Amino acid sequence: MRISEGAYENGGNLQSHAMERAFNALREFLHIAHHYNTRKILCVATSAVRDAPNKHEFLHRIKKELGLNIKVIDGKTEALLGAIAASNLLPIEDGVTIDIGGGSTELALIQKRRVIDTVSLDLGTVRLKELFFDNDAPIKQALAFIHNELAKIPPHFTSKTAVGIGGTIRALSKAIMAKNKYPLDKVHGFAFSISDEKKFIDKLISAPVLKLKKFHIKKDRYDTIKEGTLIFREVLKTVGAKDVITSGAGVREGVFLKDLLRNSNYLFPHNFEPSVKSLLDRFCIDEKTQKCHYRLSKKLYEALYSIFDERKEYEKVLLIAAKLLNIGIKVEFYEHHKHSSYIVLNDLQYNLTHKEIVTIAALVRFHKRKLPNEGFVKTFRELLPHENILNWLSFILSLAETLNKDLTCPNIAVSFADKKLHIHTTEPLYLAKEEIKNLQKPAAFAILFD
Amino acid sequence: MRISEGAYENGGNLQSHAMERAFNALREFLHIAHHYNTRKILCVATSAVRDAPNKHEFLHRIKKELGLNIKVIDGKTEALLGAIAASNLLPIEDGVTIDIGGGSTELALIQKRRVIDTVSLDLGTVRLKELFFDNDAPIKQALAFIHNELAKIPPHFTSKTAVGIGGTIRALSKAIMAKNKYPLDKVHGFAFSISDEKKFIDKLISAPVLKLKKFHIKKDRYDTIKEGTLIFREVLKTVGAKDVITSGAGVREGVFLKDLLRNSNYLFPHNFEPSVKSLLDRFCIDEKTQKCHYRLSKKLYEALYSIFDERKEYEKVLLIAAKLLNIGIKVEFYEHHKHSSYIVLNDLQYNLTHKEIVTIAALVRFHKRKLPNEGFVKTFRELLPHENILNWLSFILSLAETLNKDLTCPNIAVSFADKKLHIHTTEPLYLAKEEIKNLQKPAAFAILFD
Repeated sequence: MRISEGAYENGGNLQSHAMERAFNALREFLHIAHHYNTRKILCVATSAVRDAPNKHEFLHRIKKELGLNIKVIDGKTEALLGAIAASNLLPIEDGVTIDIGGGSTELALIQKRRVIDTVSLDLGTVRLKELFFDNDAPIKQALAFIHNELAKIPPHFTSKTAVGIGGTIRALSKAIMAKNKYPLDKVHGFAFSISDEKKFIDKLISAPVLKLKKFHIKKDRYDTIKEGTLIFREVLKTVGAKDVITSGAGVREGVFLKDLLRNSNYLFPHNFEPSVKSLLDRFCIDEKTQKCHYRLSKKLYEALYSIFDERKEYEKVLLIAAKLLNIGIKVEFYEHHKHSSYIVLNDLQYNLTHKEIVTIAALVRFHKRKLPNEGFVKTFRELLPHENILNWLSFILSLAETLNKDLTCPNIAVSFADKKLHIHTTEPLYLAKEEIKNLQKPAAFAILFD
Repeated sequence: MRISEGAYENGGNLQSHAMERAFNALREFLHIAHHYNTRKILCVATSAVRDAPNKHEFLHRIKKELGLNIKVIDGKTEALLGAIAASNLLPIEDGVTIDIGGGSTELALIQKRRVIDTVSLDLGTVRLKELFFDNDAPIKQALAFIHNELAKIPPHFTSKTAVGIGGTIRALSKAIMAKNKYPLDKVHGFAFSISDEKKFIDKLISAPVLKLKKFHIKKDRYDTIKEGTLIFREVLKTVGAKDVITSGAGVREGVFLKDLLRNSNYLFPHNFEPSVKSLLDRFCIDEKTQKCHYRLSKKLYEALYSIFDERKEYEKVLLIAAKLLNIGIKVEFYEHHKHSSYIVLNDLQYNLTHKEIVTIAALVRFHKRKLPNEGFVKTFRELLPHENILNWLSFILSLAETLNKDLTCPNIAVSFADKKLHIHTTEPLYLAKEEIKNLQKPAAFAILFD
């Protein structure tokens, strides 16, 4: 709603046309909330309202005419909210979150998924733009201003991993993805090494605005991307980060999660998988079968992992793939493996690395046959495990599904020795045995039933 | 289960190993049915069991040990079942269905979606193969045999449209699709002109088996595709067909539909849309919004169709697209238009032409912006309407969705005159009006609210 429009030129005061727009938009946002029978509405305001001398006039009108309480949060709370989103929705244990906004930049120090400290700096893209870039001031002046603010960061804000939050960093990450022809179209969870991208970042900061298209920057970011990237680069140096992981979630998700998790230290339980849970809630139409695939895959993996995955690195993705194997049936039965993979690629995201997501998508797509070296595998090669590992995982999943061919979920005992996979069961499993004859194996061994 | 294995060499008698296999498979099929808490099981047997002198032994054992009643259906019933599937699930009013099996071929005459007459011929792919092709007999002998059987087709079995049912015709259609680089990967509803494909069909019939790969035939069809295609070609001549439409549904779906529709002349109600209904059952999460998109699209179309669609050819696809616009939200919100389109392409199929399906997929994908000449449109160009029509339909859908931006579904009155689209409403529609400013239009005109 561009609530800050005109404010910077007017002592920070919110302007009447901007307040009118915000009022109109909020009224209709409330219509949307009511349409969905929302029982709880959380509305927060940050920098622009926080700093406005006339904010009370605005807040009062919204309260009086729309019955909506807007909570104005301070900078440290804003930092906390971004950090809650990052620690719950990204596959990280430790890191410093960096959320660059128009008027302020928030940092939070995360250790073992807990928020240790927060800080808010009076450093923002629009602020920097108006003070320096719009006047073509030498970049040295902007840097001096930035460093002056960065001196307020407490010295314990150091981490190998920086978590990038907000529009500037999303735009920068998308630009890097485009430049590198990164195969997965998903910015949340995209990670890069700072040393790999240093040149690109430096060039972007000093590029003329008219050249930004070549840097894969979208038009709506032209006005502040250079300022934002400059702030980001300097903050990264200050915290000593080596890697960046991008967050698609920020203050908005933090507001929701802080409320949801208020009785559990703002943290999902250990090993909680929010995206997997959400996908199963929407797409699982047969919980028994889903649990059976999980149980049989786990048993087979226990008997076989020492052959291809001694350090048990891939058990997690195998078991998630087992859970999600059949979600595509909701779309259509005959090619459900393709649909499961589509859904995984497009909506599995929280708390998993891109490598994990793509491996799960490959496993649900190619279970039932050995992984061919075709389109999907070629496209995502850089994010997939070694072919041998992929073939073993795919085989385990296929075998688990096949053993449950008649949907009675047999009890089995499994052992592997002397190139023989023994499956002990008291069930006849006629359909399963017929299909196992055609199952491609990842190595030369026999499958024996006894 | 290959129940007929060895039967042709043994006076039609079912062989014990084949019966044993069928028994084992049926037992586990019943496990699957019980897993889903099935309340009604319909099991039918055709040609191989029908013609077996020892069928009672087999049927008795299945009944006694599995409690399953197998209904052996005669050839005319088999023809009726295929025709019920075709008339309910394909966009046809009239036609002759042709279902080529291993031992028999069934035909049904459909007029105004009703089955007028049926006939069953002792003409099948395996029969022909064993009698002529396996012995390298001259094709003249096979033709004489075929024509002798075709003489049993009553003379009123004539139609411009032939409906192809069964594996042989599906394989032939898939081969034609591959040869023509047909853009949509969906065999159900694929139509072709016989004169266009005559050369290909003739060449396929006389091709050596080793060359079948070049004809895009899959290995598992090598053994009977030539025989089946020969029968098909001769039947097509006999009924005087000009076009073929392929059915992915056959006896199996017919068994289900005959039972479901037993009190309504084996026909879905007029204008019933089974695929649309099924998609909404699975994916619609907001019926009010879905109905609003439908209502507003209809109103806008009424005011605008005379400009681009005088004969009202595209109202149907527009309104289905309006219903299905949001189904992709179940997958993921931000790119839901892409997901809606994916689901439409992969599961919308019954009772619609391929052109209709692809146009609906394009509309749900590109609503919100003018159709660009990019990947999707290029890929499916041959199945899409003229660009101008597509742009108008897309605009109507976008405008309908935008007008409901705050989800209150406003009452509107619409009129178009003098290059002005007047929208009368008593609601403020702030968000809608903001968004309409950025809406791309299919022609030069103004949008005025009053």
